[in-house]
Amino acid sequence: MTIPADLEKRFAAREGQLLNDLFDFLRIPSVSARSEHNADTQRAAAWVHERLARIGFTVETCQTPGHPVVLGEWRKAPAGAPTILVYGHYDVQPPEPLELWTSPAFEPTIRDGKLFARGSVDDKGQLFAHVAALEVFLEARGTLPVNIILLAEGEEEVGSENLAPFIEKNKKRLACDGVVISDSSMFAPGIPSILSSLRGLAYFEINVRGPASDLHSGSYGGAVVNPAMALARILATMHDETGKVAIDGFYDAVRPFPPAVIAGMRQLPFDEEQFRHEVGAPALGYEPQYTVLEKLWTRPTCEVNGLLSGYTGEGAKTVLPGVSMAKVSCRLVPDQDPLKIEALMKKHVAKVTPKGVTVTVKHLHGGKPWRADLEGPLFEAAKKALAAAFGREPVVTGEGGSIPVVGDFERILGVPVLLMGFGLPGENAHAPDEWISVENFSKGMRAIAALFEQLAAK
Amino acid sequence: MTIPADLEKRFAAREGQLLNDLFDFLRIPSVSARSEHNADTQRAAAWVHERLARIGFTVETCQTPGHPVVLGEWRKAPAGAPTILVYGHYDVQPPEPLELWTSPAFEPTIRDGKLFARGSVDDKGQLFAHVAALEVFLEARGTLPVNIILLAEGEEEVGSENLAPFIEKNKKRLACDGVVISDSSMFAPGIPSILSSLRGLAYFEINVRGPASDLHSGSYGGAVVNPAMALARILATMHDETGKVAIDGFYDAVRPFPPAVIAGMRQLPFDEEQFRHEVGAPALGYEPQYTVLEKLWTRPTCEVNGLLSGYTGEGAKTVLPGVSMAKVSCRLVPDQDPLKIEALMKKHVAKVTPKGVTVTVKHLHGGKPWRADLEGPLFEAAKKALAAAFGREPVVTGEGGSIPVVGDFERILGVPVLLMGFGLPGENAHAPDEWISVENFSKGMRAIAALFEQLAAK
Repeated sequence: MTIPADLEKRFAAREGQLLNDLFDFLRIPSVSARSEHNADTQRAAAWVHERLARIGFTVETCQTPGHPVVLGEWRKAPAGAPTILVYGHYDVQPPEPLELWTSPAFEPTIRDGKLFARGSVDDKGQLFAHVAALEVFLEARGTLPVNIILLAEGEEEVGSENLAPFIEKNKKRLACDGVVISDSSMFAPGIPSILSSLRGLAYFEINVRGPASDLHSGSYGGAVVNPAMALARILATMHDETGKVAIDGFYDAVRPFPPAVIAGMRQLPFDEEQFRHEVGAPALGYEPQYTVLEKLWTRPTCEVNGLLSGYTGEGAKTVLPGVSMAKVSCRLVPDQDPLKIEALMKKHVAKVTPKGVTVTVKHLHGGKPWRADLEGPLFEAAKKALAAAFGREPVVTGEGGSIPVVGDFERILGVPVLLMGFGLPGENAHAPDEWISVENFSKGMRAIAALFEQLAAK
Repeated sequence: MTIPADLEKRFAAREGQLLNDLFDFLRIPSVSARSEHNADTQRAAAWVHERLARIGFTVETCQTPGHPVVLGEWRKAPAGAPTILVYGHYDVQPPEPLELWTSPAFEPTIRDGKLFARGSVDDKGQLFAHVAALEVFLEARGTLPVNIILLAEGEEEVGSENLAPFIEKNKKRLACDGVVISDSSMFAPGIPSILSSLRGLAYFEINVRGPASDLHSGSYGGAVVNPAMALARILATMHDETGKVAIDGFYDAVRPFPPAVIAGMRQLPFDEEQFRHEVGAPALGYEPQYTVLEKLWTRPTCEVNGLLSGYTGEGAKTVLPGVSMAKVSCRLVPDQDPLKIEALMKKHVAKVTPKGVTVTVKHLHGGKPWRADLEGPLFEAAKKALAAAFGREPVVTGEGGSIPVVGDFERILGVPVLLMGFGLPGENAHAPDEWISVENFSKGMRAIAALFEQLAAK
């Protein structure tokens, strides 16, 4: 397919104005983490509300214990047409450190084809690409080919803690045939991408206690077991020599990725040496039989996120610490379950803890891994729509991090979730000089419109 | 022997006044670590100077780059009499936390036979026991049986960094037949003790560097080697499963303690379970073939003194740290050398460092171990003198910590050093409510006088 001529014409005519409107949206400092920005966050919600209402959506700004959810509905599609839920978020990360921004965070500026502003790519720009696509569609045709529920939340950057309860509570109202989210990145410029997997997480704090207080290492060392050394010994048992996690049963639930997905990953243009260079590490590591992308997207991990014990200041202090602490987290892949990993971790630590110390393992935070099966009308439509907008077939990518809301939508609504993002590597999503490619915003809108068109054709 | 009647009579008569004078000395807050106390530290030096001058010593207050050394000399002993150098220090630890003192740190108070004050045991009380013994001796006899050099420094609590250069520079003037130091503790109440060994120290900081900056553990974890996990793996190689240090060559220079010394240690009344209980650890550990006292006094160690990496605050942060740091120190026994241990440590760490990180090992601080051979007139005299004052034979003890100045005296002056201390376990030397046993002060003075008497008898 190509972008239908009537839509393309309308996009071309409206593009400058839409970009201008996005600037207005980006100028609102809707920093959800800062209560002093609560009025701004409200203003951003109202901005979305008004925009959707103007193009004929029935809109409600739903209060939550935190920032509101803006829920827009357009349900006038022909009988039998699917209903699609579009999710995005209108809140942004704090802009600090301000001095590292080339142009101010909330004064959108285009340089070299990049639109710089806090929220440009994460996620206001991508959310607005959906709103703009719907707007252009309605202007061009007076109707939409599918029913749309647009859900914009204001707490994504602070953990979305009120979203799953909201979805649960409004399950019937949110009933749909698929969820579309544009809050991720393409693999590389010019390569449209469907994100097919996210790793889950099981995050632990391990506390080792030895003597009742810090002791003098001269007077007690050699007879009293050192909790910091004990911690090191415990942590060292968590990997084997090949870089595999050595916790009994850790891989039991791992379901291999389909060979076709792995084959696709191996065809992606990815330079491991350049990656190493960018990261600044002397070498890459762990399971050598996997490519870097497979390691990041398809393999579970066990990482130390923090260590603290005894004296950490300048110079020498001869203390035998009373306690030591490690933050340890496992990235999980389907079908590993955080609670089962918690049980395995606790069993493992108990097994390897040396005499002379006591250890507690606290599970601080968990999230399930997610993987799309990439089959069915939603994904078929997305492939065609992305190809039409970008002029080449999309690739399938993975993501090493976690987006808990994806699994929530899938689980609660029982429908597939399509992650079709228009960011790019280096977009500085949570850093100064965040940007979105103007070309990607432009092609993204078209891809979204084409997606709705394709879904109706099914 | 017993304490000679003329001396005993004089001690008995002067005891109350001497204790009163010690109170005056203890009231001076000569905290060497605090420059706001510099005038007090000077005042304490002047107090010692004046006291020695009053009893007929030739005294000089010698300036150093830090606090002065007070050097008193009395060289009128009969021809052929030995010359003994007495070392002590007039500076004290800071008194904080003040609120934990039952009576103020610089208002000496006696309760239940204990004299409470900062410096009471470490070391003003023990230094003054020597001054008082000399004073009583001179009062009773008008002369001393040995030549005495009394060296009181004011920087022991801040590392004695100007002392070794001072001894070196004044080597001829300080020439003597033996050094006597009372700045340690007896094994238990009523058990006079000669301290025969000190462990040395080699203190390292190990820094592990991986990626150029902290990374998101989701986006990079599994491909980029984790410096905190790498550090844990490095540290875990430093012991074997039996609790022995597993650094190649670590034990090569260890010279076994004489069987008689070990046999003596095994006869000391020491309850390992009570020690464990006091320490508050669930169990004791490391080399099971040794008793606790042998572990503490005769065996070298490798300890972690501090750990720091990544996120150590509350809750979960999914960071892959760019760096990690450990403070690691080895307690050394004769004849291990800190510089050789440094070389072995660096070689070991280089050997076990995983690919993907770079490691530096910095030697922050070192001190040689020390052991007395316990033979010769000085030790024979001490045994008799302690037996005379305390009514039982002294025991021989060791010390797990380090007193670098002991080795300096022995090395530079080429004479034996006798460590004959009158503190007691639980004396709170560097803590609130520091105390010295009044009985030990009293018997200590007598033991010191008896020692000089015995030395002349040789």
